[in-house]
Amino acid sequence: MRAARLHKFDPDLSGEEFLKIEEVPDPSIDAFDDVIVRVGGAGVCRTDLHIVQGQWEEAQLMPLPYTLGHENAGWVEEVGDSVRSVRPGDAVIVLPGVTDGVCDACRRGLDNRCTELAWQGIQFDGGFAERLRTKARNLVPIPEGMTPADAAPYADAGITAYHSVRVATRGTVPGDDVVVVGVGGLGHVAIQVLRATTPARIIAIDASPEALSTATRFGADHAVLGGPDTVEQVLDLTSGRGAAAVIDFVGDGDTPTQAFAMTGTGGTQVVVGYGGSLDLQMLDIMGSERSIIGVVGGTYADLREVMALSASGRVELLVDQYPFEELNHVMTSLARGELHARAVMVHG
Amino acid sequence: MRAARLHKFDPDLSGEEFLKIEEVPDPSIDAFDDVIVRVGGAGVCRTDLHIVQGQWEEAQLMPLPYTLGHENAGWVEEVGDSVRSVRPGDAVIVLPGVTDGVCDACRRGLDNRCTELAWQGIQFDGGFAERLRTKARNLVPIPEGMTPADAAPYADAGITAYHSVRVATRGTVPGDDVVVVGVGGLGHVAIQVLRATTPARIIAIDASPEALSTATRFGADHAVLGGPDTVEQVLDLTSGRGAAAVIDFVGDGDTPTQAFAMTGTGGTQVVVGYGGSLDLQMLDIMGSERSIIGVVGGTYADLREVMALSASGRVELLVDQYPFEELNHVMTSLARGELHARAVMVHG
Amino acid sequence: MRAARLHKFDPDLSGEEFLKIEEVPDPSIDAFDDVIVRVGGAGVCRTDLHIVQGQWEEAQLMPLPYTLGHENAGWVEEVGDSVRSVRPGDAVIVLPGVTDGVCDACRRGLDNRCTELAWQGIQFDGGFAERLRTKARNLVPIPEGMTPADAAPYADAGITAYHSVRVATRGTVPGDDVVVVGVGGLGHVAIQVLRATTPARIIAIDASPEALSTATRFGADHAVLGGPDTVEQVLDLTSGRGAAAVIDFVGDGDTPTQAFAMTGTGGTQVVVGYGGSLDLQMLDIMGSERSIIGVVGGTYADLREVMALSASGRVELLVDQYPFEELNHVMTSLARGELHARAVMVHG
Amino acid sequence: MRAARLHKFDPDLSGEEFLKIEEVPDPSIDAFDDVIVRVGGAGVCRTDLHIVQGQWEEAQLMPLPYTLGHENAGWVEEVGDSVRSVRPGDAVIVLPGVTDGVCDACRRGLDNRCTELAWQGIQFDGGFAERLRTKARNLVPIPEGMTPADAAPYADAGITAYHSVRVATRGTVPGDDVVVVGVGGLGHVAIQVLRATTPARIIAIDASPEALSTATRFGADHAVLGGPDTVEQVLDLTSGRGAAAVIDFVGDGDTPTQAFAMTGTGGTQVVVGYGGSLDLQMLDIMGSERSIIGVVGGTYADLREVMALSASGRVELLVDQYPFEELNHVMTSLARGELHARAVMVHG
Repeated sequence: MRAARLHKFDPDLSGEEFLKIEEVPDPSIDAFDDVIVRVGGAGVCRTDLHIVQGQWEEAQLMPLPYTLGHENAGWVEEVGDSVRSVRPGDAVIVLPGVTDGVCDACRRGLDNRCTELAWQGIQFDGGFAERLRTKARNLVPIPEGMTPADAAPYADAGITAYHSVRVATRGTVPGDDVVVVGVGGLGHVAIQVLRATTPARIIAIDASPEALSTATRFGADHAVLGGPDTVEQVLDLTSGRGAAAVIDFVGDGDTPTQAFAMTGTGGTQVVVGYGGSLDLQMLDIMGSERSIIGVVGGTYADLREVMALSASGRVELLVDQYPFEELNHVMTSLARGELHARAVMVHG
Repeated sequence: MRAARLHKFDPDLSGEEFLKIEEVPDPSIDAFDDVIVRVGGAGVCRTDLHIVQGQWEEAQLMPLPYTLGHENAGWVEEVGDSVRSVRPGDAVIVLPGVTDGVCDACRRGLDNRCTELAWQGIQFDGGFAERLRTKARNLVPIPEGMTPADAAPYADAGITAYHSVRVATRGTVPGDDVVVVGVGGLGHVAIQVLRATTPARIIAIDASPEALSTATRFGADHAVLGGPDTVEQVLDLTSGRGAAAVIDFVGDGDTPTQAFAMTGTGGTQVVVGYGGSLDLQMLDIMGSERSIIGVVGGTYADLREVMALSASGRVELLVDQYPFEELNHVMTSLARGELHARAVMVHG
Repeated sequence: MRAARLHKFDPDLSGEEFLKIEEVPDPSIDAFDDVIVRVGGAGVCRTDLHIVQGQWEEAQLMPLPYTLGHENAGWVEEVGDSVRSVRPGDAVIVLPGVTDGVCDACRRGLDNRCTELAWQGIQFDGGFAERLRTKARNLVPIPEGMTPADAAPYADAGITAYHSVRVATRGTVPGDDVVVVGVGGLGHVAIQVLRATTPARIIAIDASPEALSTATRFGADHAVLGGPDTVEQVLDLTSGRGAAAVIDFVGDGDTPTQAFAMTGTGGTQVVVGYGGSLDLQMLDIMGSERSIIGVVGGTYADLREVMALSASGRVELLVDQYPFEELNHVMTSLARGELHARAVMVHG
Repeated sequence: MRAARLHKFDPDLSGEEFLKIEEVPDPSIDAFDDVIVRVGGAGVCRTDLHIVQGQWEEAQLMPLPYTLGHENAGWVEEVGDSVRSVRPGDAVIVLPGVTDGVCDACRRGLDNRCTELAWQGIQFDGGFAERLRTKARNLVPIPEGMTPADAAPYADAGITAYHSVRVATRGTVPGDDVVVVGVGGLGHVAIQVLRATTPARIIAIDASPEALSTATRFGADHAVLGGPDTVEQVLDLTSGRGAAAVIDFVGDGDTPTQAFAMTGTGGTQVVVGYGGSLDLQMLDIMGSERSIIGVVGGTYADLREVMALSASGRVELLVDQYPFEELNHVMTSLARGELHARAVMVHG
């Protein structure tokens, strides 16, 4: 089958071909709970660029070359002996994190904290290919009326956005304000999840007017153009109280410091984006009883839940489909900031 | 009556007489809900030194001179017209934060976040005197068998310790480890509250062997002498997982960084002590889904609850009583680190 | 002023004049925290009929005659000495339960469980009059653009509906079904609150097709005509799983038994309506880990929150206004089941 | 191997030999995740008598004859190909409910609500035998210093008691009272779990003075002899407020009604015992905002947690060991109410 594999790191993303599209053997059922999925859509994520740059080298469990792609959906083609939960032909979305199912975290429903967690497309072969191998535990049915290519980005962007909203809004009541920093692939989902599941007034922040227009279309009550007075604007919009929660999908440059400053007494700063840092004074977090909470990916239950929201029509993804063979071109566009929706690779 | 008043700031604590003990008029009932309490015990807190140094100058609502003392207990002497909840003669402990009772925070039971909060002994006259004026809302009965002098430090040290344990152990289950950093006036209460209200295994950290011996006596399962290998020791004791929660009563120097490093995946660092800072990388908090949460003081309900624990004999305070006239001497000893229990001033 | 007072009970509601509209003295400020409100709207509730029938006689604290009316809103006219939170002229809605503010329940934000709770219009003079006396603690500002007559029913029907949804949906996730039994004054608010604050799929049940049409208009996903096969229909709609929560606003006849039968494993039956009973087998509640939870009225915070939802336009009340002098006629219509929206009495 | 099998139901428990002890083939590894455990202890439970009587006939998945025994512990003897979490020789306790691990309940950590749940010793061969077959998912290591015979009853009595305390005490604060009705195999564990994990004041109720003496020894603050004035005694002990929670391990005769009556405003009645019924008036549960919640068995996480408590020495089981061949004699004694501790069968 055709697969797009990483042969060597490219720290500056200066190459023309990040991944080599080539023939590789089909994956096969090796264990009782394996499932082979014919890929119907594979999302391209900024993390793929980071992997190509070698930023994840230390965490990778697999020697080069191997196949990237961690936002996958498709159709079940073959299942291992013990698999009862899906059958060949089923349309499914693939949770990227393979988990052991027996550790304490898994047994409490916190499988994104599994002690044996391994990410498909990062730590073993992923979905930039015609077929992938995963586990029965990783599959969620795709609702009728939706194709794998429509759904694929829920597997990572979707669950991370959903999970971050869930953490941010544990105590949200009508009258509270929630800020979404960064209205990209995750942020536009988060705004819709906020609208569908909470009474929060939603304030969206982005440096791009076009992104803010998307935010408003998907339910943001206020749109704030990012800049030096962002914090002041949020304080004004919240009558000086600050936000009950700030979900920071950027996490770089000034945003962590701004996100902290716009969080109100007793409020929560949720850290999703992660390039930057925050010089945190103990006095500042103590005196206002604020919380800073990290969120990474999502759980299997999160994927079920965000798919249920999608099935009900209350959340939709902005997706552009591209032919699989154009993957390197799409990655280049992503690196240049030229994409305006989540790119999903599909096979001809 | 006699009162100990602050006449001028002493940034270096170089003076001999921090507070002037002098005659002042007795307080009187000015409002329907005022209560006059004859002081039976007034705790001396490190915050009193900070006030003398002028560190709280900005937050003070009252011009000098005024009377310090925010950990007070005594007997009700006189009540305003509307007061039904206490009667003259009742032994009571005094919540230091006077709150409006009508803001959203108060109406949700979060009165330590009241928008009109004013602290007795910091923002208006306190309990380093023979009598004090407070509000009916601020009084909790002292259980039989306990004197005001026994109870006074619960009013601040007690509720802050209790509140921090409550925040730290929201999700604690048997098998979890909770670390207490700093076994002083707050820490020795926190250890007992942990023992009385949760199944946590308790690890106490302090730079003083004597404090660690107190920790063990009050129920700590492990005592770790603070030093360069503190983090490693905690990781060893927790089989490499780190703690489910770390309550940092020091919050200065290396402790914020160490507290973060010894918190496990999904764990919580509770910030109570507040002199220092933490250089927080977004990647570190994101990848492990940790939380950092600030805690300031406690609520009226916290005071009720810690007094109930005390009444049941499951929590006790280490208190040394001193004659009121020795207040300056006691404050000097506190500044020099010579006190080994909470000092409570009593009237002859 | 004019007031509508109950002079004698009428167990069969056979009289022509339930309440006597007559001249009474204006209320006056008697205590520091009293507030006089000029009534702008007073909702008529089925409980008023129960009071007339004498069903609440035992709970009444006041001898006849007195003024009924517990769903009140209006404008502040005069305030007691200590009142800072409202000023003459403010448009306000009046929480009917007067609470002491010092008991444990009040101090934890659960003021609907206050040990000294007294209901206006039931246990002391209410709002079927030109003016009423309440406490500063009981007032919530009415948002701009809404009149007291628009808002009055939020004071009881609104907060009870809101509170019941809050209890019912503590653990609701996308994909869960919530059933609302009875789409009247409370039910039509509950459906909107569910839509505005949760991702639940909403199933409305009522014996009236007109009520079901209201339900659908306000956001119910499914409308089920009450009858002998109600349980089967709900089980069909939920793929046999039953509902995650059933909020029973009827609570009489077959509905408690049906509500229990349509609640799924781990689900919650919320009891709001209260005329009937349920023969509960321990085996049935044990084996399925169901919960049955009672809800009475709402808290001050609930009133703030449902008013915030209303201000945002996400919840609206179906209200018909009538001249105050027609009160007995309106009560007769209510008793005969002829009203199709909440009746609010207004002064000419 | 030797096994004790049920060949025919005995509704009146009139026979001499409830189970036939006979030779059967050893179990074998049939699936990748099977584990063979050599039985070191098998607890005898009142449910075993109910099974013999045919009360569970409808729920049984297996034709007679088959092997009973659902409270098992022992040593791993052989494992299926995929099993990594245990190894031959490990001392383990066996969660009786086999679950699919893929349904929504399992994926949220609520495996006791698994849609495919099957109970060992009820729905397939259990542990009244020298060996049993279970799944890797069902095993929890036994801490050092404890034998399988010491631990076996934790597998059912222990987790059910633990789980019921967890549900009962979600909001328990110092000063709250929790009542335990029935101090038998479950109740004596529940009292210890309450003591170890919560600040509740514990009131134990039992009809036997001997059981009450056990209750007091294990930490109950008050012991009440069951009788016609039980409710009054509990109301007296709680100053008229009633209990914050009542855990009813009896659930038969008068106890459901009494348990409801002694539950305070906002309190919770936890239903574990299940023979009886309760005539529930909607008005009574509504007006006091009480909850009635059912609890069945426990989860894998519950078993981990109660074993952690046991390892820490904070909970211990009252166990009497008997030779396996005396099983029928032990069951007869249990039926006659002659056992005063949990009986565990051991092999020679």
